[in-house]
Amino acid sequence: MIKVGIVGGTGYTGVELLRLLALHEEAEVVAITSRAECGRRVDDLFPNLRGVYELAFSEPEPGLLATCDVVFFATPHNVAMNLVPELLDAGTRVVDLSADYRIRDASLWSEWYGEPHASPRLLSEAVYGLPEVNRQSIATARLVACPGCYPTSVQLGFIPLLAAGLVDPEHLIASSASGVSGAGRQAKVDNLLSEVSDSFKAYAVGGHRHLPEIEQGLADVAGREVRLTFVPHLLPMIRGIHSTLFARLSAPGEDLQALYESWYRDEPFVDVLPPGVFPQTRTVKGANRCQLSIQVPRQRDTVVVMATIDNLVKGASGQAVQNMNIMLGLPEEMGLRQVGLLP
Amino acid sequence: MIKVGIVGGTGYTGVELLRLLALHEEAEVVAITSRAECGRRVDDLFPNLRGVYELAFSEPEPGLLATCDVVFFATPHNVAMNLVPELLDAGTRVVDLSADYRIRDASLWSEWYGEPHASPRLLSEAVYGLPEVNRQSIATARLVACPGCYPTSVQLGFIPLLAAGLVDPEHLIASSASGVSGAGRQAKVDNLLSEVSDSFKAYAVGGHRHLPEIEQGLADVAGREVRLTFVPHLLPMIRGIHSTLFARLSAPGEDLQALYESWYRDEPFVDVLPPGVFPQTRTVKGANRCQLSIQVPRQRDTVVVMATIDNLVKGASGQAVQNMNIMLGLPEEMGLRQVGLLP
Amino acid sequence: MIKVGIVGGTGYTGVELLRLLALHEEAEVVAITSRAECGRRVDDLFPNLRGVYELAFSEPEPGLLATCDVVFFATPHNVAMNLVPELLDAGTRVVDLSADYRIRDASLWSEWYGEPHASPRLLSEAVYGLPEVNRQSIATARLVACPGCYPTSVQLGFIPLLAAGLVDPEHLIASSASGVSGAGRQAKVDNLLSEVSDSFKAYAVGGHRHLPEIEQGLADVAGREVRLTFVPHLLPMIRGIHSTLFARLSAPGEDLQALYESWYRDEPFVDVLPPGVFPQTRTVKGANRCQLSIQVPRQRDTVVVMATIDNLVKGASGQAVQNMNIMLGLPEEMGLRQVGLLP
Amino acid sequence: MIKVGIVGGTGYTGVELLRLLALHEEAEVVAITSRAECGRRVDDLFPNLRGVYELAFSEPEPGLLATCDVVFFATPHNVAMNLVPELLDAGTRVVDLSADYRIRDASLWSEWYGEPHASPRLLSEAVYGLPEVNRQSIATARLVACPGCYPTSVQLGFIPLLAAGLVDPEHLIASSASGVSGAGRQAKVDNLLSEVSDSFKAYAVGGHRHLPEIEQGLADVAGREVRLTFVPHLLPMIRGIHSTLFARLSAPGEDLQALYESWYRDEPFVDVLPPGVFPQTRTVKGANRCQLSIQVPRQRDTVVVMATIDNLVKGASGQAVQNMNIMLGLPEEMGLRQVGLLP
Repeated sequence: MIKVGIVGGTGYTGVELLRLLALHEEAEVVAITSRAECGRRVDDLFPNLRGVYELAFSEPEPGLLATCDVVFFATPHNVAMNLVPELLDAGTRVVDLSADYRIRDASLWSEWYGEPHASPRLLSEAVYGLPEVNRQSIATARLVACPGCYPTSVQLGFIPLLAAGLVDPEHLIASSASGVSGAGRQAKVDNLLSEVSDSFKAYAVGGHRHLPEIEQGLADVAGREVRLTFVPHLLPMIRGIHSTLFARLSAPGEDLQALYESWYRDEPFVDVLPPGVFPQTRTVKGANRCQLSIQVPRQRDTVVVMATIDNLVKGASGQAVQNMNIMLGLPEEMGLRQVGLLP
Repeated sequence: MIKVGIVGGTGYTGVELLRLLALHEEAEVVAITSRAECGRRVDDLFPNLRGVYELAFSEPEPGLLATCDVVFFATPHNVAMNLVPELLDAGTRVVDLSADYRIRDASLWSEWYGEPHASPRLLSEAVYGLPEVNRQSIATARLVACPGCYPTSVQLGFIPLLAAGLVDPEHLIASSASGVSGAGRQAKVDNLLSEVSDSFKAYAVGGHRHLPEIEQGLADVAGREVRLTFVPHLLPMIRGIHSTLFARLSAPGEDLQALYESWYRDEPFVDVLPPGVFPQTRTVKGANRCQLSIQVPRQRDTVVVMATIDNLVKGASGQAVQNMNIMLGLPEEMGLRQVGLLP
Repeated sequence: MIKVGIVGGTGYTGVELLRLLALHEEAEVVAITSRAECGRRVDDLFPNLRGVYELAFSEPEPGLLATCDVVFFATPHNVAMNLVPELLDAGTRVVDLSADYRIRDASLWSEWYGEPHASPRLLSEAVYGLPEVNRQSIATARLVACPGCYPTSVQLGFIPLLAAGLVDPEHLIASSASGVSGAGRQAKVDNLLSEVSDSFKAYAVGGHRHLPEIEQGLADVAGREVRLTFVPHLLPMIRGIHSTLFARLSAPGEDLQALYESWYRDEPFVDVLPPGVFPQTRTVKGANRCQLSIQVPRQRDTVVVMATIDNLVKGASGQAVQNMNIMLGLPEEMGLRQVGLLP
Repeated sequence: MIKVGIVGGTGYTGVELLRLLALHEEAEVVAITSRAECGRRVDDLFPNLRGVYELAFSEPEPGLLATCDVVFFATPHNVAMNLVPELLDAGTRVVDLSADYRIRDASLWSEWYGEPHASPRLLSEAVYGLPEVNRQSIATARLVACPGCYPTSVQLGFIPLLAAGLVDPEHLIASSASGVSGAGRQAKVDNLLSEVSDSFKAYAVGGHRHLPEIEQGLADVAGREVRLTFVPHLLPMIRGIHSTLFARLSAPGEDLQALYESWYRDEPFVDVLPPGVFPQTRTVKGANRCQLSIQVPRQRDTVVVMATIDNLVKGASGQAVQNMNIMLGLPEEMGLRQVGLLP
């Protein structure tokens, strides 16, 4: 069995890793850390795990973590970049769910996160963990930076169009919406049920931290600079991201449905829906899956792509397990066969 | 007191008219019709109205309705266009909340609604009931066609930009989201709580019936043809519309905040929020109000406008009462001073 | 105009007082205090109030508050009991929405709230502000203690049965459920949307602070000691309380429907529903109203009463305004005529 | 592989069977029927199943179903009782999720369901499929009647108390609440999101069809007649049942926590929570599990038991699979190891 450690286990991506790994045939969670909850049983904090794990939260000691084959960082940014170098030196593989290693340019990272990067030399080594783009590099990586939730949905939606050079890359638009679990399990008035239930709003319209990550990823695929207007919104629900993408077609008339179906034909976790069927977040709830639709409304020159994921699964913990499977040579779908919880 | 009739009182815009008119100092509802619920007390169907109305639903007889000073049609399309001519002949004013008189071009109407128009000669007489554009015409109209819910939010959001000629009118984008009450009070599996709660999806991406209405209204303001890509989405909540609008600036650098504040300075029901404050549907819940924000992200050339309304109030029944007030020379805010229900 | 002050205006009962008083013909809010938000405009925190109030939050200075005719305390417990004596001395009337003056027995109060009472001599003067029981005393009171939200629903439901001596007062049961706004606007993980949405749970089963208040009120009506098993639950929604009450009939066969209709016949804010119609929280949302049903299932000896209120209106701010109206000799319904927001 | 047929696959218990059986190592769904959707692919109706099943809905032909080893009826009542005799004759085992075989007394069944029973002779053969009570009989049964959702939660909560003779069986009270999925996937105005979201209500207070089933099951355990006052409520969410149970202790002072822990010690799907921890529906969402708490508030003589299940899993399809496993000699937990989806 592969020995797994989780740093920062009290948040939603932490408990989601535990949920998924409980059904993983080859992985065993041997350590889960939390300074705040040190000593508390995991299933006391998360009663859905009663009978499944006997673990208690422990201090995030590198010595303990270094005994693991792979360590997941389910932490806010600014934690992994301080601990990862020591773990890599000890031969432990790392899957970082935080933002610390997603942007290759250290100064760009600092601009958006407001502090210097603690281990900038690893930025070039870290592999961006979007398997649909980087599967081969992930397979040999010591350090994988899991994409953010919005970036996963936006990139999977735009990639075929940009790779085929069919749209104007200077004026991409993404109108995305996320469930509140994306904001984490922190005590903030803004995320109280009484504040965000029964309501919808945009936020961070001036610039969201996921923007440079998305533009970096799309530029890699397009082979040139891209410019995206990205507006995230907050949905009155727990799980799910829906991205509605708009781009100007430079060459109208292409069979975009065929393009997308071809592009993702062999991807186990990307599902291109039939023409005229639009994705719903509820059909991917709890599942490691992205569902996509493409439509050109009224035969004009703007293409619309819709992409849905569960922000905690394909947008975080599921994709992290997928990356682990690839890094360790396991079947990519291991532990990830759960079906979306509908209704 | 003004005698008011309501045709089609069992839907959500019907009960919302009753809620608003209960506090209207000059209006009295004397007739409310429903074939299906004929004879049933209104407060038996809608217990929130107990003690407020003693009315029962009646058959939609033109004779009865013609005794009213004003009649609201809170019906699906295809009802008003058959009854309105007779009412107008009897001297009754009509505020139609349905789609029957919103589009001036009868053939365009038929194309989108799949049948011939029953009273096409009235299409040129009907005034499109967006007071922020047509207040003077509404004041003298016999027949006002209340805008749809999406169109109200999209037009109020785009109008200043288009009137000032600051954006490319050929590539407008509207990514809108509505609460489920917009789908009406009809028994459909698609609108069950178990189907639409906890989920988010786009729909009618190929073409929604509100599109021609929006393009007609925006073209009037722009003084030229406009083209809009309009994608509506369904929100897991009851009330509220949020439209996120995107346009390419043809002349960057304008003070758009000042433009919007100036444009709507004297409008009692349009509220331009301070810079950096983005609207939430919850702050207009139950209120006849549109709240707006303008932002140009990252100093690029795409402007983002956000507009929120309560789809049943400023998007339907509240705007209908506002139109009635204007038509009858009453203070425009009469009966519409209720504050948004927050939280 | 009556000059109104509000202490503690940043919580949900504070903003609800502002919403209701905005439509009150005789009251004007002249001061609203908050230490944390001192200097901030009220409509910046609560954008639903834009255009309605020009107020900013101020420090809770007794000098300023003493210039008001009436002061509402919309605070947690332990604030009012320190400030009220000075205000009463200055001739200001007080409506306390907190728990400080609800329990007449100072030692019982201390037992449940964990500290000595700061102004115990006022406990006997304070009038318990349930108008359906104490209207005459309220009319002459200087200090009114507004009932808690659960206690309002439970007492209005049980009172006719207990007053008529028809049930066993030693084994009353109340299974109540409240929307999350009852927990206030405080940053707590437990009240995040991601924690309480899509879920239902009981809490404080061992003993909730509203229990002694309820038992005191019911004992007054019954003329003897009562014992209640009270289990509160948390609903995945913002507003609304539903109490399901059970009692053993000592004299089966009474016409309980007639009893309730008679008891509440002249009450403007208590509505006994027809037989077989059960109350829903949505029909009282935003309204100062309690809707009630009585049923004896299957002709056995247990009676079930269901009572619904909006916890922020009849359960807090609406009842507070109702008390103010009574204290000041105004029409009891002034400012409270808003209809429930359905759907 | 065991060949499985599902009759009535378009409802929520049907799609839930498919979700669970997708991970079952020994079962293969070979037929799923629906008259209305005959010929339509299952994953077209339920896109969460894309890539998991290649099935299409077929007509409910007994010949086809008889080739299955086990057939589930996920139908409204009145379907199974007509088809089951033929299937049993063909040697197929049947797990009926509907109400047709839950009540042993045919006249009592007819009283509650308003029609004669079509195969009354099977009522005595059918085994009531609550494994915690009837595991041995289920193991040898041809026909298992799966308990209703409310009855599962109420019986599991009351059984230890009644079996131990610790409470008054004549005055049991159950205040239960269910998510809307319990009402099925049928087009009814009453279950629209706009009707039941943001609200809470009791229903069927005069008598719910699950009452005789519960009383029958509790009487079996108590060894004498029991009388229950059962009030179901509708929760504004999709999944989950919470039952709050009240009973008068005839012998106060017993260690009820120890009683419950002992009673359910070896049950894989019943989890007695530690003292003072109360169950939430969200911790059993998607899981085949009942979580229970016991509390005697304030050392009085009324005991409160709280029980939560996912109405579609332990309250329906999960329990059905559990029964199938027992009937076929498979490990009882096979296919049922999924962890609750939290948050």
